[in-house]
Amino acid sequence: MGEFELLAKVRARLPPAGPRLRLGSGDDAAVTVPGGATATSVDALVEGVHFRRDQAGLAAIGRKALATALSDLAAMGAAPGEAYIVLGVPPDLSEEGCLELLDGAAALAADTGTALAGGDVTRAPVLTLAVTVVGHAPEPERLIGRGGAGPGDLLVLTGEIGGAAAGLLLLDDPALGRELSEETAGLLRRRQLDPTPRLRAGQALAGAGATAMIDLSDGLGGDAAHLAEASGAGVRIDAAALPLSKGVAEVAAAAGREPLPLACAGGEDYELLAAIPPERLGDASIAIGEAAEATLTRIGEVVAGSEAEIRLPGGKPIDAPGFDQLDR
Amino acid sequence: MGEFELLAKVRARLPPAGPRLRLGSGDDAAVTVPGGATATSVDALVEGVHFRRDQAGLAAIGRKALATALSDLAAMGAAPGEAYIVLGVPPDLSEEGCLELLDGAAALAADTGTALAGGDVTRAPVLTLAVTVVGHAPEPERLIGRGGAGPGDLLVLTGEIGGAAAGLLLLDDPALGRELSEETAGLLRRRQLDPTPRLRAGQALAGAGATAMIDLSDGLGGDAAHLAEASGAGVRIDAAALPLSKGVAEVAAAAGREPLPLACAGGEDYELLAAIPPERLGDASIAIGEAAEATLTRIGEVVAGSEAEIRLPGGKPIDAPGFDQLDR
Repeated sequence: MGEFELLAKVRARLPPAGPRLRLGSGDDAAVTVPGGATATSVDALVEGVHFRRDQAGLAAIGRKALATALSDLAAMGAAPGEAYIVLGVPPDLSEEGCLELLDGAAALAADTGTALAGGDVTRAPVLTLAVTVVGHAPEPERLIGRGGAGPGDLLVLTGEIGGAAAGLLLLDDPALGRELSEETAGLLRRRQLDPTPRLRAGQALAGAGATAMIDLSDGLGGDAAHLAEASGAGVRIDAAALPLSKGVAEVAAAAGREPLPLACAGGEDYELLAAIPPERLGDASIAIGEAAEATLTRIGEVVAGSEAEIRLPGGKPIDAPGFDQLDR
Repeated sequence: MGEFELLAKVRARLPPAGPRLRLGSGDDAAVTVPGGATATSVDALVEGVHFRRDQAGLAAIGRKALATALSDLAAMGAAPGEAYIVLGVPPDLSEEGCLELLDGAAALAADTGTALAGGDVTRAPVLTLAVTVVGHAPEPERLIGRGGAGPGDLLVLTGEIGGAAAGLLLLDDPALGRELSEETAGLLRRRQLDPTPRLRAGQALAGAGATAMIDLSDGLGGDAAHLAEASGAGVRIDAAALPLSKGVAEVAAAAGREPLPLACAGGEDYELLAAIPPERLGDASIAIGEAAEATLTRIGEVVAGSEAEIRLPGGKPIDAPGFDQLDR
């Protein structure tokens, strides 16, 4: 199979051009008429670094690659627009495998209203995906960066954390789930393998007046520090308020770990951490409720200074620096 | 060195935000205010497939990765806007090496008025680059796809071809250049290692009324076939009219190859092939002259049918199917 044949088969799976996407895959470039402001993010996933083919099916790998890229758009409060996928194909991946992987991404694209608008296919020593996503907003001010939080803002968190870290432990050693029902263990594995980009929640928080927002890819500890640094402020998080996914405590105990540090340092939950002025919290809660995607929990506040602290009841800080992927 | 430290050093090299790029690297996504229409293209380069580190310096690899991506924008007639670079870093590439590579891309970005707006860095088994470029035009009709050529249009070519193929032969076996001056051999190697995206020429041709356009990445034979197929027409190219780079004939002879088939099948010249109505050829020539980037040569015409033929004087066709990268 050659590049052109595979690209033709891929193209047959893509949606037709629409009002914004005027010319899709198959030309030198895709043509769009964006209007307003755009948010653009690129993300790479490499076999052996970010995933293992023996732990996740090909469709799940394709789906997660797009999900993690879209999560960056969610963190900007952008509406998803177009996605472009570069696929590095190793010698042992068949044409059917490539299409299964792209079908996984295409299913999430359809779920989220994202147009797969183009891509590139090349040989590579290991399965490699690079995903570019473009999101849209009526004006640049409606896109929320990491740097706008100020002292007095509240910190809110969508959904629950720790599930992806516990799921990864379970994938590496299923015996750690011996205290869990099969359903709970399955949900934890899915938190690792099939994260949900909080696109509706992100747009709701942006619309409700969030001053800064970030998605939890590196872990709450690290990502809270990123938000604090970009905002030139400190953040103080109350560990007792953190909503942990069901089963995290059991898996942590079985692994000889403390659940809160595991949840705060583990990464890959892809929930949103946002700063919001206290008087906007009501609006945000209503908007999140209407988006019906995830709960919203108040977990702390923005303070003067520059430190990101997660404190246990009694004041002891948790050491959860967030992982640094190159050092992982 | 970790991902965050490297990203911080990379970021310090990037240009500040401007009127279109409101928020650059360092947040979850870059924020732009495009206006009009955008052309978006992604391209991947993998060590051992597209380049060898022993044949090209790191700065040259970074520069070529961006150049080949920008060439797709040139082929749309788009003005270059933003670029996003994913870097897969192998174990034997140092932080200094990464920065040298990105400096190479940044130099071409500065030369072409492209803003390096973001990226991602990850570990990878071999050096891997995925480049996303976004170009701009006042309206979607000003972006020229491959599919608009009709019978009666003339085919024009920017610059010269064959140089990149001859340069690759020289890189693999320097002895093939024994009949050449060092200057000519050096120019041929540069055609392979440091291609020039024909951005000004592409915009000039789009403005002059080109009906279809493609850049020569796969070789004239293959790329002319792509243009013909997308346009639902045939193309007939006069091989005697083709402008070959100086030294191609000598390298081909030393390698026991015919120069015209080598030039037509070799690929990577990154010149533009455009279809244009005869009455617009004068405007196009003037516009290309003003762009002062490359010559413009009339090489054939668009005809009824579906075949892409390159004919020698006397009518014998050249077999130059263009390479298919996965089969390379």
